[in-house]
Amino acid sequence: MAYLGLHALQHRGQESAGIVAANTRGMTQERDMGLVADIFTEDRLARLKGRHAIGHTRYSTAGSSQLINAQPFLIDCHRGKMAVAHNGNLLNAAALRLELERQGSIFSTSSDSEVILHLVARSSARTLEGALVDALSRVEGAYSLVFLMRDRLIAVRDPHGFRPLSLGKLDGAMVVASETCAFDLIGARFVRDVAPGEFLIIDSSGLRSEQPFPPQPTRQCIFEHVYFSRPDSMVFGRSVNQVRRKMGVALAREHPVPADIVVPVPDSGLVAALGFAGESGIPFEFGLVRNHYVGRTFIEPKQEIRHFGVKLKLNAVAALIKGKRVILVDDSIVRGTTSRKIVTMVRDLGAREVHMRISSPPTTGPCYYGVDTPRRDDLIASAHSVEEIRAFIRADSLGYLSLEGLRKAVDDGDTFCAACFDDNYPIAVNQRAGTQANLFDIPR
Amino acid sequence: MAYLGLHALQHRGQESAGIVAANTRGMTQERDMGLVADIFTEDRLARLKGRHAIGHTRYSTAGSSQLINAQPFLIDCHRGKMAVAHNGNLLNAAALRLELERQGSIFSTSSDSEVILHLVARSSARTLEGALVDALSRVEGAYSLVFLMRDRLIAVRDPHGFRPLSLGKLDGAMVVASETCAFDLIGARFVRDVAPGEFLIIDSSGLRSEQPFPPQPTRQCIFEHVYFSRPDSMVFGRSVNQVRRKMGVALAREHPVPADIVVPVPDSGLVAALGFAGESGIPFEFGLVRNHYVGRTFIEPKQEIRHFGVKLKLNAVAALIKGKRVILVDDSIVRGTTSRKIVTMVRDLGAREVHMRISSPPTTGPCYYGVDTPRRDDLIASAHSVEEIRAFIRADSLGYLSLEGLRKAVDDGDTFCAACFDDNYPIAVNQRAGTQANLFDIPR
Amino acid sequence: MAYLGLHALQHRGQESAGIVAANTRGMTQERDMGLVADIFTEDRLARLKGRHAIGHTRYSTAGSSQLINAQPFLIDCHRGKMAVAHNGNLLNAAALRLELERQGSIFSTSSDSEVILHLVARSSARTLEGALVDALSRVEGAYSLVFLMRDRLIAVRDPHGFRPLSLGKLDGAMVVASETCAFDLIGARFVRDVAPGEFLIIDSSGLRSEQPFPPQPTRQCIFEHVYFSRPDSMVFGRSVNQVRRKMGVALAREHPVPADIVVPVPDSGLVAALGFAGESGIPFEFGLVRNHYVGRTFIEPKQEIRHFGVKLKLNAVAALIKGKRVILVDDSIVRGTTSRKIVTMVRDLGAREVHMRISSPPTTGPCYYGVDTPRRDDLIASAHSVEEIRAFIRADSLGYLSLEGLRKAVDDGDTFCAACFDDNYPIAVNQRAGTQANLFDIPR
Amino acid sequence: MAYLGLHALQHRGQESAGIVAANTRGMTQERDMGLVADIFTEDRLARLKGRHAIGHTRYSTAGSSQLINAQPFLIDCHRGKMAVAHNGNLLNAAALRLELERQGSIFSTSSDSEVILHLVARSSARTLEGALVDALSRVEGAYSLVFLMRDRLIAVRDPHGFRPLSLGKLDGAMVVASETCAFDLIGARFVRDVAPGEFLIIDSSGLRSEQPFPPQPTRQCIFEHVYFSRPDSMVFGRSVNQVRRKMGVALAREHPVPADIVVPVPDSGLVAALGFAGESGIPFEFGLVRNHYVGRTFIEPKQEIRHFGVKLKLNAVAALIKGKRVILVDDSIVRGTTSRKIVTMVRDLGAREVHMRISSPPTTGPCYYGVDTPRRDDLIASAHSVEEIRAFIRADSLGYLSLEGLRKAVDDGDTFCAACFDDNYPIAVNQRAGTQANLFDIPR
Repeated sequence: MAYLGLHALQHRGQESAGIVAANTRGMTQERDMGLVADIFTEDRLARLKGRHAIGHTRYSTAGSSQLINAQPFLIDCHRGKMAVAHNGNLLNAAALRLELERQGSIFSTSSDSEVILHLVARSSARTLEGALVDALSRVEGAYSLVFLMRDRLIAVRDPHGFRPLSLGKLDGAMVVASETCAFDLIGARFVRDVAPGEFLIIDSSGLRSEQPFPPQPTRQCIFEHVYFSRPDSMVFGRSVNQVRRKMGVALAREHPVPADIVVPVPDSGLVAALGFAGESGIPFEFGLVRNHYVGRTFIEPKQEIRHFGVKLKLNAVAALIKGKRVILVDDSIVRGTTSRKIVTMVRDLGAREVHMRISSPPTTGPCYYGVDTPRRDDLIASAHSVEEIRAFIRADSLGYLSLEGLRKAVDDGDTFCAACFDDNYPIAVNQRAGTQANLFDIPR
Repeated sequence: MAYLGLHALQHRGQESAGIVAANTRGMTQERDMGLVADIFTEDRLARLKGRHAIGHTRYSTAGSSQLINAQPFLIDCHRGKMAVAHNGNLLNAAALRLELERQGSIFSTSSDSEVILHLVARSSARTLEGALVDALSRVEGAYSLVFLMRDRLIAVRDPHGFRPLSLGKLDGAMVVASETCAFDLIGARFVRDVAPGEFLIIDSSGLRSEQPFPPQPTRQCIFEHVYFSRPDSMVFGRSVNQVRRKMGVALAREHPVPADIVVPVPDSGLVAALGFAGESGIPFEFGLVRNHYVGRTFIEPKQEIRHFGVKLKLNAVAALIKGKRVILVDDSIVRGTTSRKIVTMVRDLGAREVHMRISSPPTTGPCYYGVDTPRRDDLIASAHSVEEIRAFIRADSLGYLSLEGLRKAVDDGDTFCAACFDDNYPIAVNQRAGTQANLFDIPR
Repeated sequence: MAYLGLHALQHRGQESAGIVAANTRGMTQERDMGLVADIFTEDRLARLKGRHAIGHTRYSTAGSSQLINAQPFLIDCHRGKMAVAHNGNLLNAAALRLELERQGSIFSTSSDSEVILHLVARSSARTLEGALVDALSRVEGAYSLVFLMRDRLIAVRDPHGFRPLSLGKLDGAMVVASETCAFDLIGARFVRDVAPGEFLIIDSSGLRSEQPFPPQPTRQCIFEHVYFSRPDSMVFGRSVNQVRRKMGVALAREHPVPADIVVPVPDSGLVAALGFAGESGIPFEFGLVRNHYVGRTFIEPKQEIRHFGVKLKLNAVAALIKGKRVILVDDSIVRGTTSRKIVTMVRDLGAREVHMRISSPPTTGPCYYGVDTPRRDDLIASAHSVEEIRAFIRADSLGYLSLEGLRKAVDDGDTFCAACFDDNYPIAVNQRAGTQANLFDIPR
Repeated sequence: MAYLGLHALQHRGQESAGIVAANTRGMTQERDMGLVADIFTEDRLARLKGRHAIGHTRYSTAGSSQLINAQPFLIDCHRGKMAVAHNGNLLNAAALRLELERQGSIFSTSSDSEVILHLVARSSARTLEGALVDALSRVEGAYSLVFLMRDRLIAVRDPHGFRPLSLGKLDGAMVVASETCAFDLIGARFVRDVAPGEFLIIDSSGLRSEQPFPPQPTRQCIFEHVYFSRPDSMVFGRSVNQVRRKMGVALAREHPVPADIVVPVPDSGLVAALGFAGESGIPFEFGLVRNHYVGRTFIEPKQEIRHFGVKLKLNAVAALIKGKRVILVDDSIVRGTTSRKIVTMVRDLGAREVHMRISSPPTTGPCYYGVDTPRRDDLIASAHSVEEIRAFIRADSLGYLSLEGLRKAVDDGDTFCAACFDDNYPIAVNQRAGTQANLFDIPR
C-alpha cells in the first residue's frame, strides 16, 4: 500500500524514495536514489515486513542529492526505533543544529529534518507523544510529518498548515498522504484534511487527535494549486482541477487577446488553458506534444540544435500553428529560458503572433516552506518588469493572472500563503542564510 | 542524431532499441533491451563511431522478446558488412525461411526480418542494389527498411506503402525516419514521404531514386492515424492531429448523446475528444489523469483493489465527474477489459451516465502488416455486436466511428488499408499460421 | 593509495569497504557492500577528493551486514566533520549506548564503533585530541582506530594492543595500516608498529606521539599469526610466514606419524605444512587444489553431490593421494564440518590413512576482541575431546599444536592473548550478552 | 551440472560463459560476458530448462571480446535447433568463410567456430551425423567440440587430438569435459579420454563411437601440462600435478645452482618448484604471496609505484628473502616484462642473488591451435638468446628446461605438439594471416 501510495505521489519527488515498515518485532527500511518503480523490486518489497508503514519521495535540491538524505529516516534512541518522513522545510534548523551539536549530538545527514529527531531524543518528556510535541514546539517552518513506531503512527501538520496532509480510511485502517490521489490508487476513502497544528495518533486503539501547539493563522501553500499537486487531488478542501480551471477563466478575463488558438504548455498548463479557451471562446488545441520518455540520464548532443533542450520534452504541431495567432498558457515563469525556447519554437513554425498567458502572478520570491524554487536572483520576475520579461521570452504579449484573481480562484479566505508572489512571508527568514539545506552543505 | 531520432520515435517500440554506425573503416553496433534513454549511456554512444547511422526501436510481440531479435541487425556477407532496420511484417517469411534453411542458411534470430538478409546474401546479382531488389522481389508484406553499408544508406518502402517512411534534410545531409517528429527534434526539414515501392540510395554522390518493383495499389495503414503515430507528426501527407480532430467531429455527428462533459482517455483519445466536444458543444474536461511514471517492472499487489490495473495509469477527477453525464472518448477497444475498468471507475465516482465513444470502427481483425494487435479471438469486436460490447464494458451507450467516417477523416482516396476494421486484407494471409513471429518460436 | 591499501587488506573483510578523503575544504565518502575491486569504479575514486584519506574493509557478522554499518563512518559534530575506521570490538558498547541514548543521542548504525563518535561529540574537552582521549578512556575492548579530520589523521591502538596497527612512510608522508603488506603494495617503507596505548597525531607539522591511557599488559592477538594475517606481513614485529613455519615444525615434533605425504589445506595451511614436511622429512605435496573463482553468490545445486560444499573451493589430486598415507595440515578447526568433508574426500580418492594436524590448539572459546569466531556452542572443541573430534572428522589420527608450542613459535614473552585457546580473557566479558554486535540487532 | 562444470573450468576462459539446455520441446540459452559465478543467477539457471546441456567458458583474444562471440552458439537450420561449443582454433576458417559467404551464407559472429555450423547447414548428407562429419572433414585445425540437439549430444575431437576432451559417467549419464576436474566437482567418474578423431554420439540409446576421419599422427598440446590445465586434472592420461613435478625435477638436474631457497611464482610455478626443491635439496619457501582478489576492472593508479602492476597480484615475503640466494621457478616467460618486475621486486627486498628457472623451453612461436599466446614479435624468446633474456629480466642466471627434458616429463611417445617451443607446426599455417580470430576483425 505504501509502495502504491508513493507511486501516486511520484510527481512530488523524483530524486529518491523510501519505505519503512514496522511491526511489534522491529522495523525495516528500504531507500534508494531514483524512481519508485525502479527502486522497489519484489525482493525489496518482500524485505519490508510489518503491519504498518510510511514512505517518502524526495526531490532534488542543490548539494544534498545523496542516498544518506533519502527519507524516511530510521533511528534508534532511548525511546526505541522511530522513523520519520517530512514534507516541508524548517527555518531555524541551522541554529538548532548548531545548538544540538554543541550539546554533543551527531548529525549523519545534511537534511533539516534530522533536527526534529535529535530534539525528540533529547526531550525529557515522559511520553513519546510529549517528546514529539516538545521537539516540534522548538522548530519553526513548514512541516507535514509522519512518524512511525513499532506500535503506532503519528501524523502532524504545522500550525500554519503550509503543506497539505490528508486523512483517509481503507477497510477500517487509517491512512495519511500528501494528496488524495494516493487514496484513489489504493482504494481508500478520503475522510478529511489533517488540520493545521493537529497532532494525530493512530494506534491499535484507533485515532486520537490533539492540538498541542498555540494556534497560528492558516497559511496553506497556494502554489500547490498553481502547479505542484496533481489535478485529480483534493488539496486544502478544493479540487485542483476546478481551481485551475477557474484560474484559466480569470486569466482570460484579465488578459484577453484576439487569437486563433489556445495552446497549453503540457502538462502543467492543460487545465488553465481549457478554462482560458472556454472563457475566451478561442479554440483549444493540443499544439504542443510532450514526450514522456525523457529520463534523467538523457545525454545531450554536442551539436548545436535549435531549441534542443525543450524539444526533448516538447514538440509543436506545425499543421496547427502555421499562420495562426497562438495563445500559450503555462502555470508560471521561473527563469524565463524555457518559455523563451517554447515561444521561439512556435514562432519558427510560422505562428503569426505568440501570446503568453500565465495562470499565476509573477514569481518574485523563493519559497522557504518546502517548494523547490531557485533563489531570488534566478527568478526573472524578481528584477524585471512584465514588459521586460515579454521582451526576453520574445512573445507578442504577456499576461499574468493577478494575485487577486488567483486568490479568488482558490476561494481564499485569508488562509493561503502566496509569499512567492507577494513577498509576504508568514515566518521571517534569515535571507542571508538562503535555504537551510544549502547551509548544511557549506564545508566547515 | 540517430539517438535523438530514436528518442522521438520511442512510442513506436519500447522493448528494445539499437543503433549501427558506419564509416569507411567499419561498422559498430549497440543494442539492448529497454528504453532508448536507458540503453544509450555516454560510453555506448562514444563507441558508435561513424559518419552515418541507422537505429531502431522495437515493440514486444509474444515469444520473441529477446536481445537477439533487437534491431538493427548487423551481418557479414560476401558483399561486406551490412545492417538493416525493418518496420513492418513479412507474410511469406516462414516459407522463405524453410526454403533458405533447406539450402543451408543458418538463422540466428526468430525475426522475420532476417529472411531479407539471407536473400540478399544469396542473390547472384552483380551489384548490392541489384541484390537488394532481388531479395525484396521475393518477400511479400509490409516493410519500410533502412539498410546501412560502410559507404551508403538505402531506404525502401514496400509497393503497397503499408508503413510510413519520410525523407528529411539537415544541413545538406539526408535523413529518413518513420515519423516526421524525429526530424523536428534534430532540427531537420521534412522533404517528402518515401513513395510506395521507392528504392532510395543515399551516398556521397547524393540521392538516387528508383522504382524497381511492379506497381501495386497503395495501402497505407489507417491505424497510424487512429492511434499509432504521434499527433505532432505528418504521416502519409496528413497532420495526425488534424485527422484525429476530424475523427472526433465525425464521431460527434454520428453518435450524438446529451451529456454534461466530454472526457478523453489520455493520451490516445485527447485530440478526438477535443473534436467531439467542439462539434457537440459539450464541455471538454480533463476528467482522467494519467500517471506517466509507470515503468514496465511495476509490481502488482496481491491485495484485491478495485480497478487496480487501470488505476496505476489513470485516475479520475471526482470533482468533475460526480453527478455528471460523462462521454468518454477513446481511439479503439481491443479486448474491452480496460474500457470496462475505466467505465466502472468513472461510474463509481458518481457519474450519472457514462457514454463511450470510439474514434474508429470496431476492431474485428488482427493486423498482419506490422501493428501489434492480438489475434482475432482476443478482439472483442470480432465476435460480439456493439450492443454486446456496450453491455460488457458497462457503458450506458457505445458509439464507434463508421469506416466511412474514418476514411473521410483521413481523406482516403482509396489509398488506405483498413483491414483491421473491414477484413479486406490487401495481401492474402495464411490465417492458420498466425503471425510470422509466433511461427518461428514454435519448437520444432 | 587508500584504495590500493584496502586491496592489500581485502582478506581482513570482504563484506563491505569504504574510503573517506579529506582536504581543508571538506570530506567525501564512498562506501558500498562488496569487494574493493568491485566497489571502486573510476567515477567513485574521482569523487574522493582530498590530500589524505582513510579506508576500511569489513567482514560479515550475523545480523549487521548492511550498508549503514559499512565503515569509515563520517559524521558532523560541533568539532566539525570527522571520520573513523575501527578494527576491533568494544566490550562495554551496549552499556554505553544505553547511557548515551538516555542522554538524547541518536544512533544510526548497529555497530559498536558508533559509540566512540558519540562520546567524542559529548566530551567537554577543550581540544579534539582531548575529546578523543576522553572518549576512549570510557570504552573497554579492542581497538585499532584511525580518525580523519580535514587537517589531520589520528591513529590509536588500545592499551592491550589486541589488534595490529603499523606505521609506514612514503615519500615523506606517513601511512598507517593493519598489516605491512599494504605498505608493500604502495611502495611505502615499514617504520614501526603503533605501540599499545599509543595516540598518534599526524598533521602538517609532522608526527606527534602520546601515551594518554594508563598502561595495561600487552595482549596481542595470537590468532593473527595462526590464521588471520597475510603471510607476507610483519605483525607484532614478527614475520607471519616465519612464525607459521615454526608452528609446523613444532607440530611435527609434537605429533609425529609415519606417512607418505604432507598435504596442506590451502591457503591457510600452506606454510605450516611446509614446516611440518621439513621437520618430519615426509614429502610435501600440493594434494589439494583451491578454486579461486568462488564468489559469494554461488548458487548451490539442489542435487545431492558428495562433499559438494567443500568441492566448490577445494579439489583433491587423485594421482597423489591414491594408496598413500596422507597428513593434512590446517590452521584450525572451528565447527569440524569442513574438516570432515575434506578428510572424507581424500579418503574417497583412495588414501590409505588420513592424519589431520592442526597448527594451533583446540579453539575452545569465541573471540570478543575482533575476530569473527562463532559462539562457544558452535565450536566443536568447546565441548568435545580431541578423540571425539577425530572421530567426528573421520581422521585416523588428529594432533593439535600445544599452546606452549604455539607461544614458542610466536616467541611470546607474555604479550599475547590466546583466550580463544585458553579461556584466559584479558577483559571480562558479560557472557550472557554474547557479542556486542548481536546485542544491537535484538529488536526492542 | 553444466554450471558446476563451467565453474571447475573457469581457469580455461574468464571472458564470457554460456550454457545451452535442451529437451525434446526446445532449447534455451544463457550467455554473458564475465565469470561463471557472476553470470548465472538463480533466475538465469531456472530459465535453462532441459534434460541435457552444454556449456563453454571463453578467453579473450584481441578484437573479438564481444557477447556475440560468447559460446555455445545456438542456431536454427533445416535440421532443427543445434548448439555447439568449441575448444580450439581452426586454420582454414578464413578461406572457408570467404567461400561460404560467396555462396550466400551470413555470418553473425567473428568467431572461427561459426564456419562449422554453416558447413553443417549446407551439407547434403542424409543424417545429422553425416552432415557433421561432412563439415568437419573440410575444416583443418584444433577442435574439441560438443554439439547439442534436442535429443542427443555429440562430442568430437580432431584427428590430431590437439585439445583435451574427457568422458565421464554420473549415475548412468555420460558427461564430457575438457578436464577431469569438472568431473570431480559434480561427482562424476572419469571413464577415458575421447580419442583423437573420435566421433561420440550420446543419446537415449546410450553411447556410440565412430572414427570417421582419416587417421593423423596424435599431436596433444604439451602446454596443457606446462601451464594451462589445473594440477588436479588428468590430461591426456597423465596427472598434471605429477608431470609438473617431474618438470621441476628435470629442471633442477639441467640447471643446478647453489642457492638458499626455492621460491615458486604462484600459482603456475608451484608444483614445478616443489620438484626443483626436492631434487636440489634446497628448501622450498612461499616467498611470493598471491592476492586472489584482483578483478579485471582494477583501476591502476596514475602515480609511479615501483613494480606496481605485478604487486597487485604478487607480493614478496621480505623476511624470507633478505640476504638470500633465491631461485625463482615459473612455468614460462612470454614477453619478459612480468619476470623482470618479479626479479626486481625480489632483488629490492635484499636478495643476494636471483636465479630464474623456467619449467619449459623458451617460447619461440605462437600457438595456432587454441592457446592464447601473443604473436611471434611479442615473444621475447623468438628473437633473443637466453643470455639476452637473462639480462633483460635482470636475473643472475636463467635456465630453461630443455625440450627433451619436457618431453620426458610428459612421457612423450611422439604424441605431443610442442610447436610453441620447436616451431614444428603439425598443420601448416599461413603466417601472414596471423590468428584466424584477428583476420575476421579486419574491416573489409
